[in-house]
Amino acid sequence: MDSDTEMHRKESSSENPDPVKAKCPPVLVDDVYLNGPTLDVNGAEDFIRESMRIITEDAVKKATDVREKVCEWHSPEDLKELLDLQLTDEGESDTRILERCRDAIRYSVKTTHPRFFNQLYAGMEPYSMVASFIIEALKPSLYTYEVSPVFTLVEDAVLRKMREVIGWKEGGDGIFNAGGSLSNMYAVNLARYHHCPDVKELGLSAVPRLVLFTSQECHYSISKAAAFLGIGTKNVYVVPSDNRGKMIPTALEELIQTAKSEGAVPFMVNATAGTTVLGAFDPIEEIADICEKHNLWLHVDACWGGAALMSAKHKHLLKGVHRANSVAWNPHKMLMACLQCCAFLVRDKTGLLQRCYSARASYLFQQDKFYDVSYDTGDKSVQCSRKPDAFKFWLMWKALGSKELEQRVDRAFAMAKYLAQEVKKREGFRLLMEPEYANVCFWYIPPSLRDLPDSTELWEKIHKVAPVVKERMMKKGSMMVGYQPHGDKANFFRMIIISPQVSRQDMDFVLDEIDRLGRDL
Amino acid sequence: MDSDTEMHRKESSSENPDPVKAKCPPVLVDDVYLNGPTLDVNGAEDFIRESMRIITEDAVKKATDVREKVCEWHSPEDLKELLDLQLTDEGESDTRILERCRDAIRYSVKTTHPRFFNQLYAGMEPYSMVASFIIEALKPSLYTYEVSPVFTLVEDAVLRKMREVIGWKEGGDGIFNAGGSLSNMYAVNLARYHHCPDVKELGLSAVPRLVLFTSQECHYSISKAAAFLGIGTKNVYVVPSDNRGKMIPTALEELIQTAKSEGAVPFMVNATAGTTVLGAFDPIEEIADICEKHNLWLHVDACWGGAALMSAKHKHLLKGVHRANSVAWNPHKMLMACLQCCAFLVRDKTGLLQRCYSARASYLFQQDKFYDVSYDTGDKSVQCSRKPDAFKFWLMWKALGSKELEQRVDRAFAMAKYLAQEVKKREGFRLLMEPEYANVCFWYIPPSLRDLPDSTELWEKIHKVAPVVKERMMKKGSMMVGYQPHGDKANFFRMIIISPQVSRQDMDFVLDEIDRLGRDL
Repeated sequence: MDSDTEMHRKESSSENPDPVKAKCPPVLVDDVYLNGPTLDVNGAEDFIRESMRIITEDAVKKATDVREKVCEWHSPEDLKELLDLQLTDEGESDTRILERCRDAIRYSVKTTHPRFFNQLYAGMEPYSMVASFIIEALKPSLYTYEVSPVFTLVEDAVLRKMREVIGWKEGGDGIFNAGGSLSNMYAVNLARYHHCPDVKELGLSAVPRLVLFTSQECHYSISKAAAFLGIGTKNVYVVPSDNRGKMIPTALEELIQTAKSEGAVPFMVNATAGTTVLGAFDPIEEIADICEKHNLWLHVDACWGGAALMSAKHKHLLKGVHRANSVAWNPHKMLMACLQCCAFLVRDKTGLLQRCYSARASYLFQQDKFYDVSYDTGDKSVQCSRKPDAFKFWLMWKALGSKELEQRVDRAFAMAKYLAQEVKKREGFRLLMEPEYANVCFWYIPPSLRDLPDSTELWEKIHKVAPVVKERMMKKGSMMVGYQPHGDKANFFRMIIISPQVSRQDMDFVLDEIDRLGRDL
Repeated sequence: MDSDTEMHRKESSSENPDPVKAKCPPVLVDDVYLNGPTLDVNGAEDFIRESMRIITEDAVKKATDVREKVCEWHSPEDLKELLDLQLTDEGESDTRILERCRDAIRYSVKTTHPRFFNQLYAGMEPYSMVASFIIEALKPSLYTYEVSPVFTLVEDAVLRKMREVIGWKEGGDGIFNAGGSLSNMYAVNLARYHHCPDVKELGLSAVPRLVLFTSQECHYSISKAAAFLGIGTKNVYVVPSDNRGKMIPTALEELIQTAKSEGAVPFMVNATAGTTVLGAFDPIEEIADICEKHNLWLHVDACWGGAALMSAKHKHLLKGVHRANSVAWNPHKMLMACLQCCAFLVRDKTGLLQRCYSARASYLFQQDKFYDVSYDTGDKSVQCSRKPDAFKFWLMWKALGSKELEQRVDRAFAMAKYLAQEVKKREGFRLLMEPEYANVCFWYIPPSLRDLPDSTELWEKIHKVAPVVKERMMKKGSMMVGYQPHGDKANFFRMIIISPQVSRQDMDFVLDEIDRLGRDL
């Protein structure tokens, strides 16, 4: 950065307008001189260009380089010192701000690194990232066609294609929104409205106790939805799952009967396609039969597992999904669109979504506009301003085509299978179960524990292994793998495999590294 | 783009791994050859660099150039043809994708253009945009410190500073989230939980009818919140506003009595600081007195008006805001952080937010982690993955300092005042009311209607003027100004003034242009 550029940006301050440059004399209003603009975006060009160089080098190339660390760990206390977070009266120079950009990148976890396996998203998708940059630069909001013509049509096209993939051939509805949790909340509210439209106006205090059903393995957003939407977490009836993590349909049927016998009113079932921890798929066909019989809304939370629909080989895992009333599906997970990219899809073709969510704000949704206002999607949304996340998926889909997306999904499945095979081969590793999807769950048992008899004490010791190994991998920065307890199971590692940046050698590395980090325990 | 680069990216396909290059032989699993990565991000470097050049030229420089159009209007039908939105099996070349990027930018509305006055956000803030790019490249999610160390601390620092600006000197709580509507929903749910913690588990069907109070001028998200949260829109008691758009405190007091006499249970009041259409500020002090008297949660929706708190001259508009229990404030509006940047701030220091929202997911919020897990903010959120929007505000605040932010706010007020003065001076323009904030509302009356007597017929004619002028400005692309009817008032223009890119000459232009576009009507 040369200092001229910085000067250029500060030059046209509101306090000292240059009367020679300005075409007309400044006007003083409330002690403020008003004339030309006081911010010239062109003057920021050098700053923007330099920051883009830093982003490309540090946040893209270096962050995704397998030879670099996944993270440079510092405790919160230390990191606060390193970052100097305080906000003050005076601003800082562009040079200093560029250093801050470098630091923010340096100390951040590299979730796009090939050895980041910690969450249900990972890796870098260049096309989607570029789409994100375009969105950030253009600052669109998706309430009206008038303000977001391109992105309105893009969202419509992506939703249309996703519905086709689900198997809803003749239309339907949907909306992208800020996260899978929110998609699930949309579903609960829509199911409730469908069951009892009066709730929108009268509220739940005017109706009998409504209950919904989900499996014990479902995502915690279902419980959050029940709390947030006023249904109450106790009115989420938890259906037992089998030892693979799949909802047991007969148990669902029984629980529906129980609820009815209590005088409660069942209104929806949430089936999970790809559970968070085990990657299990609930049996949608059988659940759909039960929903039809009892006239219940079927929502499929396919936030994680929806990607399998792209694969001819694996889409059977979601067999029956076309019978769902609604589906949540996050392309930001296995399909690697940039965060966040979350679709809520609806089978209904009668405008239910709009009726359920509309508030008809007259300053946005004027009915006397000069174009077809059915393109204004904002009144279907629980948000007001809303980001055009579909574009991040659309651009990469255009670039890769469905075939490449399918290959990536197939490869993630194969990579998970490979890792499971390796786990089984190795001493000191024990697989929780054969993976059905891209979650591979396993224990690491250090040499000191390998010959102990299977007992509560042994499992208490194994329980303490994963947190220590995790601490060590974080401090070393070599990789990131999640761990958790689950039901009565002691802490185990959960590997999530997504990105085509990942190699088979990385799978071997993960097992080697866990052993290296934990063998003294 | 040279085609070599593209080749480089396709070369390492999973179907034909090159056994010479690979260090170990590929393994075949489920018909997929597994070996090295099939996506090399470095191979995308040229594509990324070229797209960044396009973004800088088209989405930053050209989009903010006052000599360029604000939009290039096409009807939905025409634009669909121009864009070719369909998603197919085969992908497209990088060259074609770059064309698509150019087209997406070209046909999008330039909300960062100096003559975009259509919404409560506008303009380009280079520092915030760069922060956005960093976020998009790094793909962070803000549930745990472990995954987002930098952004967790940044959010904490920004919330801390915003609470200080509000006047909460000794701590408090808060969270950034996906929109002001969601912030208002957080508030309603938190107030409800505070009033009756049992609702979280038992739901609203177990408690008496809860009601909340807001003014007729409030944002429509309050009504959406009541519907979504199961309270019911009829349980939003609408308090009349005076002719300036401010809530009438005595009317609030009466309505609370009415609700109580009906056996309903009041639990919160929403006061609006900066209403959407008129830019009015409810009298917070008087409303706070009433809330204290009746033991009601006071939420201040300062999504739009919160920026006034940065100004010593104008912060009196929110006098008493420190007495609120919660505040919603969107730095993405007048403070120009990139979309979305929305803070929900809470005065409580006892962990109420966490208790209200927590679901304790064991796969994210393990309690046996090696660092202080009180830094994991995810269990305060209604979302699961959540974007670190605070960073977009933090970086620009660091660069500009509070003083520059204050000057920008003062200038927007002055510019609005200037525009109002001009409206009053000009024939054929009529001001709705003196602006209190940066909303300037006015009618344009074409020459043919100027001599007609004031009558219902006249106003019916005036009502039809704004939509036509709007259509013409869109098709010409010269500027974007919103219009709407409001209560019994015929369609009027609402100018929103925010950005330091705007000049006094732009204000003159807007009035000249409306006259040019509408004088034949």
